[in-house]
Amino acid sequence: MARLDVKIPEVSADSYPIFIETGSLCGVWERLQADYPKLGKFVVTDANVVAAGHLATLIGDNTPPVYSIDPPGEISKHIHTVIAIIEQLEKAFFGRDTLIIALGGGTVGDIAGFAGAIFKRGVKVIQIPTTTVSQADSSVGGKTGVDSSISKNAFGAFWQPEAVFIDVETLLTLDDREYRAGLIEGVKHALIADNEYFEFFEQNIDAILSRQMDVLGKIAMKNCRIKASVVEKDPTEKNLRRILNYGHTIGHAVETASGFELLHGECVAIGMIGAAMIEQQIGLGDDRVARIEKILRKLQVPVRIPAEIDKNQLINIVKRDKKAVNQWPKFVLLEEIGKVHCKNGQWAVDVSREMVEKTITDLY
Amino acid sequence: MARLDVKIPEVSADSYPIFIETGSLCGVWERLQADYPKLGKFVVTDANVVAAGHLATLIGDNTPPVYSIDPPGEISKHIHTVIAIIEQLEKAFFGRDTLIIALGGGTVGDIAGFAGAIFKRGVKVIQIPTTTVSQADSSVGGKTGVDSSISKNAFGAFWQPEAVFIDVETLLTLDDREYRAGLIEGVKHALIADNEYFEFFEQNIDAILSRQMDVLGKIAMKNCRIKASVVEKDPTEKNLRRILNYGHTIGHAVETASGFELLHGECVAIGMIGAAMIEQQIGLGDDRVARIEKILRKLQVPVRIPAEIDKNQLINIVKRDKKAVNQWPKFVLLEEIGKVHCKNGQWAVDVSREMVEKTITDLY
Repeated sequence: MARLDVKIPEVSADSYPIFIETGSLCGVWERLQADYPKLGKFVVTDANVVAAGHLATLIGDNTPPVYSIDPPGEISKHIHTVIAIIEQLEKAFFGRDTLIIALGGGTVGDIAGFAGAIFKRGVKVIQIPTTTVSQADSSVGGKTGVDSSISKNAFGAFWQPEAVFIDVETLLTLDDREYRAGLIEGVKHALIADNEYFEFFEQNIDAILSRQMDVLGKIAMKNCRIKASVVEKDPTEKNLRRILNYGHTIGHAVETASGFELLHGECVAIGMIGAAMIEQQIGLGDDRVARIEKILRKLQVPVRIPAEIDKNQLINIVKRDKKAVNQWPKFVLLEEIGKVHCKNGQWAVDVSREMVEKTITDLY
Repeated sequence: MARLDVKIPEVSADSYPIFIETGSLCGVWERLQADYPKLGKFVVTDANVVAAGHLATLIGDNTPPVYSIDPPGEISKHIHTVIAIIEQLEKAFFGRDTLIIALGGGTVGDIAGFAGAIFKRGVKVIQIPTTTVSQADSSVGGKTGVDSSISKNAFGAFWQPEAVFIDVETLLTLDDREYRAGLIEGVKHALIADNEYFEFFEQNIDAILSRQMDVLGKIAMKNCRIKASVVEKDPTEKNLRRILNYGHTIGHAVETASGFELLHGECVAIGMIGAAMIEQQIGLGDDRVARIEKILRKLQVPVRIPAEIDKNQLINIVKRDKKAVNQWPKFVLLEEIGKVHCKNGQWAVDVSREMVEKTITDLY
């Protein structure tokens, strides 16, 4: 058989900056104009962000085309929203020389990032996260994706942003429940990577809940450092990056089963308790469930699965988890606070179906 | 302003094989089973390919899940088909450990390749092209994409296949018009890269039209060599790869304006005549229009825009071409047969709007 090999050349190392400064949002547009003078700028945001005044702060007197996702939130994180954004770009004659600017929370970043990844085979994206969850997690690392009518993140791509601009002042307008839920990704970072950071949460919980700017600035920097150090080593989640999914296997399933009544961070909180329960059962270090539960309770997020969620439905959804290999998902587990368990070089490990089902039962 | 840089590590060079052999299709499945024992296999094909018997030849006694695109052809190369494929994958509990096998022509490869690029942030894809156009062009190089309701290839990604299997015997079942139209991408390769290959077309036109296996094997190898040598140097079409779009700027617009009544290759034929007319007007080498037109006429493809296509509509579509930078597309032009014109290091160059409009007028 004749054979011809097509070479795929090496792609050089690269980097992108995260800028963190309180009160910086009003200066970002001028900077984008200076840094990307030739690119057509298109803003994706949502109705909440517009109402909170952040769009006005960003664009000032400029009048770029804006797609405002409405209704905001997970319900719109669907492939149909991406289609609508891309059709609006096309109608306005945007081409490959487009800069998509994502202003908002995690769903805005996911939707706009994925639209950028697939519009005309990829255009540049700027992330300007305005919520605790997106500043802690989703704006950094290039994971983008949206849901199908069947499950979460069925569609997605790894698409790194050109730059990330974080202004913690935008967190002042966030409603309390969303603010608290978004902090959970920070707790997750502490649990997987930094015992001292976990203690910082325990010691500064009041300052965090009262949104003190200096404390929020520190948290933003800590989160970005941990997230960046992980995604740098494994940008496309072959192995190590999976540790960022701590608490997410059960968490995602609870989120779906709740019909998105529960927020992402709230579900990850439940999922982290579930992971800690599994760790305890298989003897991974001392019992940490109570200590983790205490900080989560102070953050006033749920730590148990709401009774109205059907258990069998939940187990079926776990089975369809996007990280499933051979149709049953692996779990990220801790050895101690700040240190993820690694088995045979793998950061996500098998847990028996029986134990997962038992843990889900115990989580009610 | 605090700044943190996220490193994106180097991606190593890689390669993938193209296997070319007459009568090889019946052995491909066994090879895939051996090479990818752990991956769940899912076939994407279309109703024509199934009717021609190629699916049966490929899978033999195996019973993998199959998505058969129906109706076949450009009309189904739409984001909605990708959504349907991905929802079928989800319903059958396919995960990241999926191998998508694209069996068919260019639209099957584009649709299945794009589905592979975005299903759960990307799964492996095998291309088994069964038409002249896909064996010559679209199965190699990783360009994938589908249309929106507004324009062609609005959605897309660069997603390299794991391997390409070419069996020229599958061309025997192709209807005559599609067979001839697909040869145009070969003529295009000759025009941009290989004067001797163009002469081969001129000298072997009867053997080509009567589908002699040895001649088709030579053409397949020639096409893959030229395509591979270009995409290796510029996989994501920053510059050089644009030469593969010779004839495509006007061609794509004619294709859209015809409501896909005309086949892709037929439109590229018209577009290549248009490009040659522009070359002549701006004095790029000797007049080649008549010589190119002669071979295209022997291949019985159109060389003029059908009268029923509205000229103003066509010009509006050119304006929206996906290669548009600053809303007016650039053109790939030849200096001589086998050599593309390069200006200031750019392989796609500006042509005045007036000249494009005049050329479109002359092409009627």
